[in-house]
Amino acid sequence: MEHFYAVVMAGGSGTRFWPLSRATRPKQILPILGGDSMVRRTVDRLFPLFDPRQIFVVTGREHSELVRRELPYLPPENLIDEPMGRDTAAAIGLAATFLEWRDPEAAFAVLPADHYIDDPAKLHVDLKRARLAAQGGALVTLGIKPRHPSTAYGYLNRGPREGEAFRVRRFYEKPKLEAARAFVESGDYFWNSGMFVWEAWAIRKAIDRYLPAMGKLLTEIGGALGTSRLPATLAREYAKIQRVSIDYGVMEKAERVLMVEAGFGWDDVGSWAAAAERRGKDAAGNSLEGKCVPVETKDSLVLSNDPNHLVAVLGLEGFVVVHTPDATLVCPKGRSEELKKLVEEIRNKGYEKHL
Amino acid sequence: MEHFYAVVMAGGSGTRFWPLSRATRPKQILPILGGDSMVRRTVDRLFPLFDPRQIFVVTGREHSELVRRELPYLPPENLIDEPMGRDTAAAIGLAATFLEWRDPEAAFAVLPADHYIDDPAKLHVDLKRARLAAQGGALVTLGIKPRHPSTAYGYLNRGPREGEAFRVRRFYEKPKLEAARAFVESGDYFWNSGMFVWEAWAIRKAIDRYLPAMGKLLTEIGGALGTSRLPATLAREYAKIQRVSIDYGVMEKAERVLMVEAGFGWDDVGSWAAAAERRGKDAAGNSLEGKCVPVETKDSLVLSNDPNHLVAVLGLEGFVVVHTPDATLVCPKGRSEELKKLVEEIRNKGYEKHL
Repeated sequence: MEHFYAVVMAGGSGTRFWPLSRATRPKQILPILGGDSMVRRTVDRLFPLFDPRQIFVVTGREHSELVRRELPYLPPENLIDEPMGRDTAAAIGLAATFLEWRDPEAAFAVLPADHYIDDPAKLHVDLKRARLAAQGGALVTLGIKPRHPSTAYGYLNRGPREGEAFRVRRFYEKPKLEAARAFVESGDYFWNSGMFVWEAWAIRKAIDRYLPAMGKLLTEIGGALGTSRLPATLAREYAKIQRVSIDYGVMEKAERVLMVEAGFGWDDVGSWAAAAERRGKDAAGNSLEGKCVPVETKDSLVLSNDPNHLVAVLGLEGFVVVHTPDATLVCPKGRSEELKKLVEEIRNKGYEKHL
Repeated sequence: MEHFYAVVMAGGSGTRFWPLSRATRPKQILPILGGDSMVRRTVDRLFPLFDPRQIFVVTGREHSELVRRELPYLPPENLIDEPMGRDTAAAIGLAATFLEWRDPEAAFAVLPADHYIDDPAKLHVDLKRARLAAQGGALVTLGIKPRHPSTAYGYLNRGPREGEAFRVRRFYEKPKLEAARAFVESGDYFWNSGMFVWEAWAIRKAIDRYLPAMGKLLTEIGGALGTSRLPATLAREYAKIQRVSIDYGVMEKAERVLMVEAGFGWDDVGSWAAAAERRGKDAAGNSLEGKCVPVETKDSLVLSNDPNHLVAVLGLEGFVVVHTPDATLVCPKGRSEELKKLVEEIRNKGYEKHL
């Protein structure tokens, strides 16, 4: 589609996939689901709806070389490096500023680099519907029909139909279990996927309105685009930008927010348990990678990325075992969402160099 | 005591403590219980009942250098190297032949190098009683009051009292669970610990009678003791010796077998679960060694012997996690006795170099 772009959000780092993910090797460049890295999967599934020249990737400067290596077919100028992480509102604002400068009629889809999506064709259909709904300035979000009362996702309350989409009545931050259950039962609540479609000017205008300080700094940066002042201006102004998420900073306040109901299966792959769920499994329900030997083991993820090391497991059920050259994790799948506790304890014990 | 010697049996290798134990690093030279190696613990607990000059160690030639390094205070000539493993009857026969040659009045205690014993003072008392009982040619074994109906140990049926000891009515190989239960209930059955006391001539005579071929070969070797022919003779004749255990080959058939009831706590430390049971534990019941971080983990053994590697565990209960530079084991404690299966599977997969 003309003037339609994809912006893949590949910033951020995290410890949810420790010990595979590290400060220097974030989730998006890792093959968390086996095979290709998350960012490469994300970009690959955009073809042929988008041409490589229409796909942009926002990433942190410290990871941009690694991300670039994952995406050799993208024009180098399509990688937008943030000098430092400033959360999603700033990253999206930077992409909008950049795209509007390149193409005043630009509209774009925002796609996180680290999610699981089962059916690219359905994604393409939904993005096209969202593009139509975004015509004229609406901010469009993709809602996911909830499969269970997750307390790990934000929710959207779907309102009346409006053309290709629905009004969003309200955004809800991660709810307590009871509220989540009520949401799921009602049928009118959807998971907030973090995927959006809008025209570049429309999201820029919304930022100007709801985050005026950020809007001014982005305008400053926009003025330097195409000039030799850009690197210095970007580094200086971006550092001043407030850290805030696009949901909290803009979407929850904006007036014309629409939702397209996603037709594809989706997961934000927030933990080793979620990754295990979405990986290929053998007959025993195990997902195995690297040099590992399981005996009487089922429903487990066993992963070793050290070719000189053997991981042997006996009698496990529903476990995660991840081995890397300098650190090993063992936990029941059901506990893998609590990895943060372990990471904190590792820090407390003075073993930061293994994080 | 004069003419009384200790023979520590430090031969054999095993995979029960894989990945810590290997073909080249058998259990007895490893600190399976933390701190000192098993063989060093075994020898240390013999002092002061025995003087270093009275303590002999039989070990396989391939491990003798490692065993020697663990026992720097023993006279070098007190290490008896088997050219190859030939099971316990041969190892004991070799020690008896050697000791009888050095001291025709020698009596000796046989002590496996890889057992747990809680109280050395009680061991000393029992060995002295057994030495008295062995006077005049009886073969004396130490029986352990069974704590539970183990199917992993052989049993002795205790008969009538005879001086310091009791007659042994019969030896039983590892029983089925039902039989083991009946044994424990009767109160007259004891675990066969593999610890013995006898006069050197008496066990040699028993071997001559019940294993005449072995007796002849040992006599051949005995004839070379103190001569330059010894190494060649030992290598040649020992290779011909039948592999048989002292229990099956001699004790089960012998006429005058007595039992001393051991007053000390004992365990053959046959699995990681047993080792975990006998190691120091923290308040959560964990036994930790090396660079490891446990969170919300209890009743588990977590051991890393690689100072450059961190083992982090979350939410484990009753687990064994052992990390070495080239292999890691994870299993529930209750399965650690089935390690053999895992070792076989590792072999099947072609990963022998990690065994």
